[in-house]
Amino acid sequence: MRIDLNCDMGEGLGGREVDEEMMSLVSSANVACGFHASEPGNMHRTVRLAKAHGVAVGAHPSYPDRPGFGRRDLAASPDQVRDDVLYQVGALLAFCRAEGVPLCHVKAHGALYNAAAKDLPTALAVAEAVRSVDPNLWLVCLFGSAQVEAARRTGLRYVEEVFADRAYSRDGRLVPRTTPGSVIDDAAAVGERVLRMVKEGKVHSLDGTDIAVGGGTICVHGDTPGSVELARAIRDRLLAEGVELAPFSREET
Amino acid sequence: MRIDLNCDMGEGLGGREVDEEMMSLVSSANVACGFHASEPGNMHRTVRLAKAHGVAVGAHPSYPDRPGFGRRDLAASPDQVRDDVLYQVGALLAFCRAEGVPLCHVKAHGALYNAAAKDLPTALAVAEAVRSVDPNLWLVCLFGSAQVEAARRTGLRYVEEVFADRAYSRDGRLVPRTTPGSVIDDAAAVGERVLRMVKEGKVHSLDGTDIAVGGGTICVHGDTPGSVELARAIRDRLLAEGVELAPFSREET
Amino acid sequence: MRIDLNCDMGEGLGGREVDEEMMSLVSSANVACGFHASEPGNMHRTVRLAKAHGVAVGAHPSYPDRPGFGRRDLAASPDQVRDDVLYQVGALLAFCRAEGVPLCHVKAHGALYNAAAKDLPTALAVAEAVRSVDPNLWLVCLFGSAQVEAARRTGLRYVEEVFADRAYSRDGRLVPRTTPGSVIDDAAAVGERVLRMVKEGKVHSLDGTDIAVGGGTICVHGDTPGSVELARAIRDRLLAEGVELAPFSREET
Amino acid sequence: MRIDLNCDMGEGLGGREVDEEMMSLVSSANVACGFHASEPGNMHRTVRLAKAHGVAVGAHPSYPDRPGFGRRDLAASPDQVRDDVLYQVGALLAFCRAEGVPLCHVKAHGALYNAAAKDLPTALAVAEAVRSVDPNLWLVCLFGSAQVEAARRTGLRYVEEVFADRAYSRDGRLVPRTTPGSVIDDAAAVGERVLRMVKEGKVHSLDGTDIAVGGGTICVHGDTPGSVELARAIRDRLLAEGVELAPFSREET
Repeated sequence: MRIDLNCDMGEGLGGREVDEEMMSLVSSANVACGFHASEPGNMHRTVRLAKAHGVAVGAHPSYPDRPGFGRRDLAASPDQVRDDVLYQVGALLAFCRAEGVPLCHVKAHGALYNAAAKDLPTALAVAEAVRSVDPNLWLVCLFGSAQVEAARRTGLRYVEEVFADRAYSRDGRLVPRTTPGSVIDDAAAVGERVLRMVKEGKVHSLDGTDIAVGGGTICVHGDTPGSVELARAIRDRLLAEGVELAPFSREET
Repeated sequence: MRIDLNCDMGEGLGGREVDEEMMSLVSSANVACGFHASEPGNMHRTVRLAKAHGVAVGAHPSYPDRPGFGRRDLAASPDQVRDDVLYQVGALLAFCRAEGVPLCHVKAHGALYNAAAKDLPTALAVAEAVRSVDPNLWLVCLFGSAQVEAARRTGLRYVEEVFADRAYSRDGRLVPRTTPGSVIDDAAAVGERVLRMVKEGKVHSLDGTDIAVGGGTICVHGDTPGSVELARAIRDRLLAEGVELAPFSREET
Repeated sequence: MRIDLNCDMGEGLGGREVDEEMMSLVSSANVACGFHASEPGNMHRTVRLAKAHGVAVGAHPSYPDRPGFGRRDLAASPDQVRDDVLYQVGALLAFCRAEGVPLCHVKAHGALYNAAAKDLPTALAVAEAVRSVDPNLWLVCLFGSAQVEAARRTGLRYVEEVFADRAYSRDGRLVPRTTPGSVIDDAAAVGERVLRMVKEGKVHSLDGTDIAVGGGTICVHGDTPGSVELARAIRDRLLAEGVELAPFSREET
Repeated sequence: MRIDLNCDMGEGLGGREVDEEMMSLVSSANVACGFHASEPGNMHRTVRLAKAHGVAVGAHPSYPDRPGFGRRDLAASPDQVRDDVLYQVGALLAFCRAEGVPLCHVKAHGALYNAAAKDLPTALAVAEAVRSVDPNLWLVCLFGSAQVEAARRTGLRYVEEVFADRAYSRDGRLVPRTTPGSVIDDAAAVGERVLRMVKEGKVHSLDGTDIAVGGGTICVHGDTPGSVELARAIRDRLLAEGVELAPFSREET
């Protein structure tokens, strides 16, 4: 068995040290492209860091919203979303070329990720922009969301994503962060959850029933205190159970 | 004989009408990439407009200086210049891919252009960024400047550029805009000058002596009043004398 | 009788010429503060221009959204709105001090104006920011909107605003721009409408019934073609009928 | 005896924790205004934090250069400098009003500080902007620099500043950071140096001779590792020797 562990990087959260430690633990990095965080110099450093650790590089495009860190809904039209994604993915592609590493995937950030998960026109705008830049790119999609449908329609390869440290509701959605119990910060519990998602494709929802969730990549958030420890716990637990960690975008031989 | 006529586009100067008229007159367009002007939606429209007119598309990267329109010297290190150019050229490349047109060339903007004309490390930073994105791109270089040397060292194809409406000093440099007589706004005179540069490789310098200047592309500025008339005068004069207008980046068959 | 004519300025729309002509026609100017358009140098020039024409200066704060020109809804919290408005109004205040003119009023821009017209918490955030900077500032409010309620609650002086060139629905709301007939561009018709709003407090709604609308200031948009002619038509019509044009913020003696 | 200890704040360096600890140690805070770092929400929080600690609030305006953190020389004209400083100081003033605390002083940041220390027209542009906003503001000036001359000419109150952790050359200038020995990171040594500057107005220059330096405020940098410990060492040493720490801008009774 193998699975991918992905993390957002180059966002300036927690300082460069967190990026460096995280990069040694994950298999895919989603690199901020300047619209919610980062700037060219930092993007280059982050790509270089990923290269040094053999981590797959992806673009992490956002709504243009630095003061809100890309976490606020913005009434952008599909055309505007497409152009913003084109711009950011193209920009990151240049750094990949400068470092001689492939650009592997694209994962939308924050409010844009959520909008694309729910709204098919937005999801299609993202997917079409990604395909325009390179039809071989992978799209990272929230499990069972409109993003999956958009990837299918545009013919993009995609991977479904689950969240290690977030509670799910009975209908398979993420429980909002404002709900008590929505964030799981006990490292052992998180490791156990992830293992079960990977091995059985199941997780206990917040109300206790088992639901089906799964996918090819697990997201760990870099901006929460203890995130490095959490990533390490997941990694150790998976490796101990014989699950291999590798980028979903790396073709099996 | 053939020559290229280039103009900066998508800078929001003079309104979209100027861009539309200019696009019908020139053979190469240098598209602003968001650091001194423009934003993703406008970049896309400008690439689409160039495509509709069969005009070759180039990137026009700048120092990050919107309030100064990229015209102010900035003490950016070569590494910072390289990363800024990578970012911008990559971003524009994405719009070219979305429109299915080739990205043909790169021409630095404003203060970055001037810095790269004089300072070899800066010129090399620009050239290396361009080569990283695509070694087949052309670099637009001020005639006889450090940019030419940088293009040679990095193995990039390049074209030298002359200015239609600017006076030259005896040593072949552009006379600063602050000097009386530095800008030539008489359309007939400009047409005559350009014709002589193209046919004879010579121009009268400001003090009256003939100097050698030449190159494969002529720059017309879009942001001066009467720029469209100037471009039309140059175009008409050249065509009347049997000089063909075509992108320098278009390989002859 | 007297009335105020206001226009957004310093937004770079239509070029500086439009601002200069408009400034000779209106009595109050809403100056862009850098979040949807403009930058410090342009703000200073705009304040200077207003001063030269004896036009009252107001701040025109926006959501931080330059690529969308502040016209896109943004899920900003009331705290974020308050801080964005504080920042922008404070910035403009500095230019007023440099020019020795009073800062008279604040009018929210675009999507923020619309949000504050409908949503009381947003309107209160704007009003509280304005009051914090100077409790003597006037707040420009859409006629009959939540902005009026917010001004009352915070104890701010306010003026209600009507639109010269926009159709109203039977319930007193502006007809969305996407509806046919929503924008009235016949100068004579606009002059007539405005005169009736000012003298009778009435306007024909889009479906032909008379509705009550009124207020102390009339907005003319600077970014539509023919806006200068429209402003001139309104001005001439009002003056011809003996209506005086003067800033609402200028205390009568 | 009393002296002021100042630190740059709200720059996002070292995280909010560093700001919180620093705020408990210093007497004046220079608050970033969005041009090199920060945004409205963070500016408000920083002013609130200063208020909670009874720390004097000052504006810390910069060249518009976020990617370079305001540390790169920029060829801004005096008019552009004046307008940038007006904008930023005005913006911070609004947050001070919202919190009911006085805006006490202005200290230019990074490359702008250095330019104003050497170049009188730049220094005058800064000083005139400050005076325009409020003639009672204090200007923080590098000891013996052109900033002092500019403050005198514009009639502004000013305080001269010395650096706790930086070596001085024999002629009283700061030794560039690139020179070995330019930064002093031994907390005890720094405490001793500061005490001598305060009590005797003298410091050992890098080549060992005693030079006269002095002023009413001591700068500690927040962005170096160990900065909090350094600030604490200075504070403890001064208090132990009976030197009182208080904002220079607080009038003695």
